[in-house]
Amino acid sequence: MSNTYLHSDRLFPSDNRACEIARELYDSVKSAPIISPHGHTDPRWFADNSAFTDPVSLLLTPDHYILRMLYSQGISLESLGVSPLDGSQYEQDKRKAWKIFAEHFYLFRGTPSALWLSHVFHEVFKIEKGFSGDSADEYFDIISSKLGSKDFLPRALFDRFKIEVLATTDGATDNLEHHQKIKKDWGKRVIPTYRPDACIDPEHEDFKQNLKRLCELTGEDAYSWKGYLKAHRNRREYFKQMGATATDHGHPTAKTLNLNETESESLFKRVQGPSVTAEDSENFRALMLWQMASMSVDDGLVMQLHPGAMRNHNQKIFERFGRDKGADIPVSIEYTRSLKSLLDSFGNTTKLRLILFTLDETNYARELAPLAGHYPALRLGPAWWFHDSPEGMIRQRKQVIETAGFYNGTGFIDDTRAFFSIPARHDVSRRIDARILAEWVSERRLTLEDAQDVIIDLTGKLARESFNL
Amino acid sequence: MSNTYLHSDRLFPSDNRACEIARELYDSVKSAPIISPHGHTDPRWFADNSAFTDPVSLLLTPDHYILRMLYSQGISLESLGVSPLDGSQYEQDKRKAWKIFAEHFYLFRGTPSALWLSHVFHEVFKIEKGFSGDSADEYFDIISSKLGSKDFLPRALFDRFKIEVLATTDGATDNLEHHQKIKKDWGKRVIPTYRPDACIDPEHEDFKQNLKRLCELTGEDAYSWKGYLKAHRNRREYFKQMGATATDHGHPTAKTLNLNETESESLFKRVQGPSVTAEDSENFRALMLWQMASMSVDDGLVMQLHPGAMRNHNQKIFERFGRDKGADIPVSIEYTRSLKSLLDSFGNTTKLRLILFTLDETNYARELAPLAGHYPALRLGPAWWFHDSPEGMIRQRKQVIETAGFYNGTGFIDDTRAFFSIPARHDVSRRIDARILAEWVSERRLTLEDAQDVIIDLTGKLARESFNL
Amino acid sequence: MSNTYLHSDRLFPSDNRACEIARELYDSVKSAPIISPHGHTDPRWFADNSAFTDPVSLLLTPDHYILRMLYSQGISLESLGVSPLDGSQYEQDKRKAWKIFAEHFYLFRGTPSALWLSHVFHEVFKIEKGFSGDSADEYFDIISSKLGSKDFLPRALFDRFKIEVLATTDGATDNLEHHQKIKKDWGKRVIPTYRPDACIDPEHEDFKQNLKRLCELTGEDAYSWKGYLKAHRNRREYFKQMGATATDHGHPTAKTLNLNETESESLFKRVQGPSVTAEDSENFRALMLWQMASMSVDDGLVMQLHPGAMRNHNQKIFERFGRDKGADIPVSIEYTRSLKSLLDSFGNTTKLRLILFTLDETNYARELAPLAGHYPALRLGPAWWFHDSPEGMIRQRKQVIETAGFYNGTGFIDDTRAFFSIPARHDVSRRIDARILAEWVSERRLTLEDAQDVIIDLTGKLARESFNL
Repeated sequence: MSNTYLHSDRLFPSDNRACEIARELYDSVKSAPIISPHGHTDPRWFADNSAFTDPVSLLLTPDHYILRMLYSQGISLESLGVSPLDGSQYEQDKRKAWKIFAEHFYLFRGTPSALWLSHVFHEVFKIEKGFSGDSADEYFDIISSKLGSKDFLPRALFDRFKIEVLATTDGATDNLEHHQKIKKDWGKRVIPTYRPDACIDPEHEDFKQNLKRLCELTGEDAYSWKGYLKAHRNRREYFKQMGATATDHGHPTAKTLNLNETESESLFKRVQGPSVTAEDSENFRALMLWQMASMSVDDGLVMQLHPGAMRNHNQKIFERFGRDKGADIPVSIEYTRSLKSLLDSFGNTTKLRLILFTLDETNYARELAPLAGHYPALRLGPAWWFHDSPEGMIRQRKQVIETAGFYNGTGFIDDTRAFFSIPARHDVSRRIDARILAEWVSERRLTLEDAQDVIIDLTGKLARESFNL
Repeated sequence: MSNTYLHSDRLFPSDNRACEIARELYDSVKSAPIISPHGHTDPRWFADNSAFTDPVSLLLTPDHYILRMLYSQGISLESLGVSPLDGSQYEQDKRKAWKIFAEHFYLFRGTPSALWLSHVFHEVFKIEKGFSGDSADEYFDIISSKLGSKDFLPRALFDRFKIEVLATTDGATDNLEHHQKIKKDWGKRVIPTYRPDACIDPEHEDFKQNLKRLCELTGEDAYSWKGYLKAHRNRREYFKQMGATATDHGHPTAKTLNLNETESESLFKRVQGPSVTAEDSENFRALMLWQMASMSVDDGLVMQLHPGAMRNHNQKIFERFGRDKGADIPVSIEYTRSLKSLLDSFGNTTKLRLILFTLDETNYARELAPLAGHYPALRLGPAWWFHDSPEGMIRQRKQVIETAGFYNGTGFIDDTRAFFSIPARHDVSRRIDARILAEWVSERRLTLEDAQDVIIDLTGKLARESFNL
Repeated sequence: MSNTYLHSDRLFPSDNRACEIARELYDSVKSAPIISPHGHTDPRWFADNSAFTDPVSLLLTPDHYILRMLYSQGISLESLGVSPLDGSQYEQDKRKAWKIFAEHFYLFRGTPSALWLSHVFHEVFKIEKGFSGDSADEYFDIISSKLGSKDFLPRALFDRFKIEVLATTDGATDNLEHHQKIKKDWGKRVIPTYRPDACIDPEHEDFKQNLKRLCELTGEDAYSWKGYLKAHRNRREYFKQMGATATDHGHPTAKTLNLNETESESLFKRVQGPSVTAEDSENFRALMLWQMASMSVDDGLVMQLHPGAMRNHNQKIFERFGRDKGADIPVSIEYTRSLKSLLDSFGNTTKLRLILFTLDETNYARELAPLAGHYPALRLGPAWWFHDSPEGMIRQRKQVIETAGFYNGTGFIDDTRAFFSIPARHDVSRRIDARILAEWVSERRLTLEDAQDVIIDLTGKLARESFNL
């Protein structure tokens, strides 16, 4: 399809010679299956296979990219249909909330959200006209109606989107009931990921509650250092049985720490105490990254680390609406010294695979590419979150590849709650890969044959290998 | 005009298709009026409307971009006609100083100064030949002669340049006499900006002197915390009466601090003491940013913050010639944590508008775009100072827009003492906007219709809105 | 030559108009002599003029760029023919090691190593086919055979490569015997560079040993502060006699420090003590940068500073194989405050020339260009090490030139142990210069005449001037 909003050459170079090469490269991968080993969709969708209800709760209120932009222009979250935690009033009329979104869609010009949404509107829902206040109602009706049809049930879309494997992210204490059901009565590859942050971070509001839950689930004494480690091993084993191939760690920093048993026990005791210090919390998280790497060497789970977001920066939004409403803000981050303890122990073995992400782009060329271009245990994830965008991807590739090559990266993997946008995101990445490779071929920096090999590897092969799929 | 030095397609993409789109977009805004709400011209020029005297004192000695480049190549400031503070010798023959500049004009190849000066020479003064040692005398004569004509009087140029509004920057204790005169006998919009740094920074050499002056001007006891705040409110009110719509704050860092009254009083006392610590000075500046935001919520003055320059890095130049001789050097800067105190209090209200600038480009994508793309109170200023250049603008837009969109920025505003360069600077920005939009249209990332809307908004509308004009 | 791997237009813009301009600019400098004032080749090669033995010890094992990439993919250094320090087993069959390299050459796609190696293979050794596992043996045979011929002796290649001057890097205690021999019986300009790090850094494993050696070589009491400084002056003088025009300093940070004599003596005593602190070590290095600058003002040696690499990050690789095996990782670095002590003393004199390098690209636009664009004593080196690559050079030039111009840089200088790659590296840089200038001409930001002048200056003239050659 090549309407005004979704040109078949979109994101390709403007220059004719390079554009033709990009087209050729893109054509070879545009229909490849989607590997999505790092996502945040709800496994319940695929377990229950119930219809999505309406455009607002599907596309608007769960999308923190959209909420943050509208909010930045003075539009209240309540008016968009987001419910305050305290039960106070918010817009119940979804059509009204949808209209506000439509009227302000111009705010997204130039953003990846506009690219993704255009793909969802025009490619998934096959709507021809543009999205604006004028067409808001028509959009609402079309989308609502299609969502009720069989073709738009979660499992049908999973197939239509050509998803080969889809990972969800699940707390260490999650019982994975939806995954059990999926496994039993559908059989497609929707797999969990072990995300133990809330059991590891002493500053998490549920930390102590989660230790208790770990005891219950595993039968180990998770209040003792040894029992706590055993409980993690136990849960990781359960996640593996349910299909998991990876763990995922979102920490404030990349600090890692190797302590002996006495020091570890003592620190673990202190972080369970009544008044834990910020330093102890940071050190405990660092210690646990080291321990998680050690467990990965044993059980083969791939380890993902993405530090550098200050979560819930807007205190009022957090108090009124809770997490994930667009108020996470990146900070400067350091890897070279932070990862040294972990790498001194496990950096030289391919039994560990540690995939690094960053929100601080200054690290691409300075620290991440040199690290990943040397240590066998390391791989780099793609441009992430705020940088999962055409310019963000271009910067990442241009700053990483010259030092780390193509083969120390994972290729593209998406990172989203927005199920409908998954094909759009992979499509953007495939187009940008085709674009950069085409430019390099056109500039005679790479042969066309090499570029053809590389784009195949970038689209699937590297992700499958990186995540042991 | 399209001579060798000022091609009509300058700064547009080299690629034909994108170049044509850029031309079309640029044509729609090239003659739009100039909004200049953040400048450093001398209001006396417009109050007195006296002729500028000569090329050297107009174009050379006040331009720190030019002085720094010439000085970096071993040319003394004295030889360029800059007078040492101690009254020692310097070049009195302006023609000689001008010739040195002309002979070294090749040093500016590739710099924005060359673009601006070419515009001034060829477009404002209508000189056809190139600027070099050979043409130095001819240039000197033509410019000197034209400066004596009616068409080159400040007010005539203000009209010729199509300036709609021009803000100056004025100390908190300035009596704004020139603005009074302009208001009375000319009526054009030349407005002051409240710049209280020298009354706020305990490390400023005139800090205590300025407190005394605040007392005299306002009748408040500016040595007491409450009186000091009242004095600021008093002066802000006076500036508003004289047309001001904004305040301007140049701080070493972006730190903000919310202290209770007792702590504030105590800190204010300490910074008036005989041996103020660096930490107290920093905290007092941080406290006053919070207070200024609080006052802005009340009186509606837009707040501008540009941290990150280490002023007068070259001690010898500072001692010999004073401020603003090109020896300010940027340092690394942080926003996410620094602004939190202010944003916790005022970030969620559109009653505050805080415009952020940076000299540290690492903040564009990492901190500034995410902040401005979330908080209703924030807007981003354009690429600033060393980054007010084609590549600097391209970097800024490509790193900001994907996260914050076009509508959380102010559009282009210049920042200069060099009155003659104002049209050149706006022209460069309009060309770069046209270029980037054209590339995105050509790459099918944006429709032409959207780009046409956006460039109109970027040229004037956003600046007017951002500065309450 | 224009085979698949080495197109005559490589690295030029894809756009036709810009490409033609790039071709014209490149043609004017492609055959210019090579100035290489900052290198790490072995002077013994030119003193003895013995044949290089085989492809592996010439092109593979000494190249840390290649080793790091292969190692990152799980290939052991032993299998590549790198000998462990402890005498344990490693691959003795060079043909086997070479084959592993060839089979994994695809890993280098998109990296500068691929560009350099292609140049060496196709341009220096005139091999037509591509390098891969299939052609590994043929490559091994051809290269081995050619290395035995007269045309491939070091001195013959020096001439064939059109090297005008080649600097090596030599420890302060080196007796420069090879340079003596070269001077005596060949006469070409292969000159030493004074690299005193191991005599200056108290954390260097040989620091105390080197003090002793300084005493022996100079007859000074290098254990006393005054004697130590005299010993440095003595050695610098000897290096100058052997042709040196520069010193070279690789420090963890850019910190400089000006201490009075009493403080200096006391600090020097402490760093010779049994348990020197990290702070004292850092301060002593900082003090010695100041002292080296002071000596440079006196003896005219150009000073080079390249901070920011954490050396030997991989402890196991360092222990097993020693230095320079690809495990140096950059860290964030600061210049503005760090250099202030040195610049306060010597920044305003052209008697000092201090050339700055960085691995932290965030400093280009933020600190380095503003510093070099102001201080007469400063010049910027080219994109360095991990950034000595097409994209790295483009980033460096675009971030530096607008503020510092072309004339506060050194132009391109290579930095390599890999003698055969020197022409390739200069060729890449000349092509990238041609490319950027062509784009700017094509975008009418620079006249063609200016670009023609600039590329001549960038290719040789600026390097000659910067290094007093």
